[in-house]
Amino acid sequence: MSILVVGSVALDTIETPSGFRKDLLGGSATYFSISASFFSPVNLVAVVGRDFSLKYIDLFKKRKIDINGLEIKDGETFRWEAKYNTDLNNVKTISTKLNVFSDFKPNIPDNYILSDYVFLANIDPQLQEFVLEKIKKPKLIASDTMSHWIIEKKKALIKLLKKIDIFFLNETEARLLSEENNLYKAAKSILKFGPKNVIIKKGENGALLFSTNSIFSVPAFLLENVIDPTGAGDTFAGGVIGYLSSSKDKDLKKAILYGTVLASFAVEDFSINRLINIKFFDIQKRLNAFKKIINYGL
Amino acid sequence: MSILVVGSVALDTIETPSGFRKDLLGGSATYFSISASFFSPVNLVAVVGRDFSLKYIDLFKKRKIDINGLEIKDGETFRWEAKYNTDLNNVKTISTKLNVFSDFKPNIPDNYILSDYVFLANIDPQLQEFVLEKIKKPKLIASDTMSHWIIEKKKALIKLLKKIDIFFLNETEARLLSEENNLYKAAKSILKFGPKNVIIKKGENGALLFSTNSIFSVPAFLLENVIDPTGAGDTFAGGVIGYLSSSKDKDLKKAILYGTVLASFAVEDFSINRLINIKFFDIQKRLNAFKKIINYGL
Repeated sequence: MSILVVGSVALDTIETPSGFRKDLLGGSATYFSISASFFSPVNLVAVVGRDFSLKYIDLFKKRKIDINGLEIKDGETFRWEAKYNTDLNNVKTISTKLNVFSDFKPNIPDNYILSDYVFLANIDPQLQEFVLEKIKKPKLIASDTMSHWIIEKKKALIKLLKKIDIFFLNETEARLLSEENNLYKAAKSILKFGPKNVIIKKGENGALLFSTNSIFSVPAFLLENVIDPTGAGDTFAGGVIGYLSSSKDKDLKKAILYGTVLASFAVEDFSINRLINIKFFDIQKRLNAFKKIINYGL
Repeated sequence: MSILVVGSVALDTIETPSGFRKDLLGGSATYFSISASFFSPVNLVAVVGRDFSLKYIDLFKKRKIDINGLEIKDGETFRWEAKYNTDLNNVKTISTKLNVFSDFKPNIPDNYILSDYVFLANIDPQLQEFVLEKIKKPKLIASDTMSHWIIEKKKALIKLLKKIDIFFLNETEARLLSEENNLYKAAKSILKFGPKNVIIKKGENGALLFSTNSIFSVPAFLLENVIDPTGAGDTFAGGVIGYLSSSKDKDLKKAILYGTVLASFAVEDFSINRLINIKFFDIQKRLNAFKKIINYGL
């Protein structure tokens, strides 16, 4: 099974209590594809500028990530600069320079049209819809969003949600979209927009899955050393969709456990540095450790 | 098995988005005893003033809560006034009037001396120690604390911890006591002070259990209607200790599930109003619903 992802590839400048790093490989599509590539081949759709490093291109290629859909455009790559506070629970954006990403028009190569799984990362919902229309017969469609689009393009987002199998969003976004403070009510109200499943990401506090008739709640994997939380959410989604694409059982609960484990690796170093230094064996090992922590003897 | 609790009995004035209530029955020992009384007889040690209502006395008595140790003193009962913000995650204390609680010297009646289980709620650690010395052969000793005592009586608190089987505290307190931002490191460092188990309460984000060789993480029970979060932590502790006191298996993980369920009822109304209107059958029913939500198919 192949997975198509459309989103951002960025150069991040990040400060956390562990240090300051410039021009790190970042962006939603980056984290998602690195994570999903542990499970299935990934088709990447994004745009970068002429300043993008060849070594990053090479990194994608080495991981079964097809970069036919990675447009290289005149101008600079999308840049995000941010600083995390001491307990890593809050991030302050210092600057966002969209650059070539500002007029991003996703370009879907012919060899992507039969992608089985689709992940529409947090871009303009009209572009998410545009990409979706190009894909012939996707088996599963997942999407993410961000507060900006909930505010600016709510109508388009709600229209898109009717086609979504798994909708990922964080607590703040869930409250904003539903206009409900209580997360249970928020999720129920979002389900009414049409997505089959809603996954609310709670960062270090785990994740909640809501389907029409069931709820599922899972804590995060507790870590002793968190270096940089950037990309945890997209890495989580990459693990979830990756597992679903490669497994026979298509068990969404199990997929969420894999997503949780992948996300736990992502935050143990800056950028994708930890993710590219683990093997599938490490994922299985941590999954087993995680299972012990959440084994309630039921 | 009998459970001794020493702590506060208070009259709370609370404002939440659901309303404003004056002179509600509150205090750590109140929530703990109502919760624990679902499992075992409770011996209550606390102090109230002449303004305390007879109907509350009656309420304790009806629930197998021994009030021999509830001193009634000249003066007014401890009063706390607080206001919760919209998403109920922050509470602002408007006023704290210790009144008769300010020079509280726990009075342990003879019939309490053989209590099997002891819960030392968040009072001065020197008073916690004083109470502990009166109890003959406790089978299990649990305690809680608060930031005030970590700052003002750290040495006494650390001394007490050597004798503690289960130490309950919240995230902020864990960080303050350990001087570690990371919760994993915080818990490991607190374990070094001597308690056999440390339970970090995370409110709507569940709880973490740390023992020397294991970690256990459980989400909270997701609720559609949260009215007043006051007392959730002490109700949780009451469920944990209550279950341990009454069960044969003495399974701390299972006890935490019960504590979680009890706490979920506590926040569904002001004060102890919801707790006193449920039966043990309701607890079992919600526990079963909770088990479905956290059944990862492991």
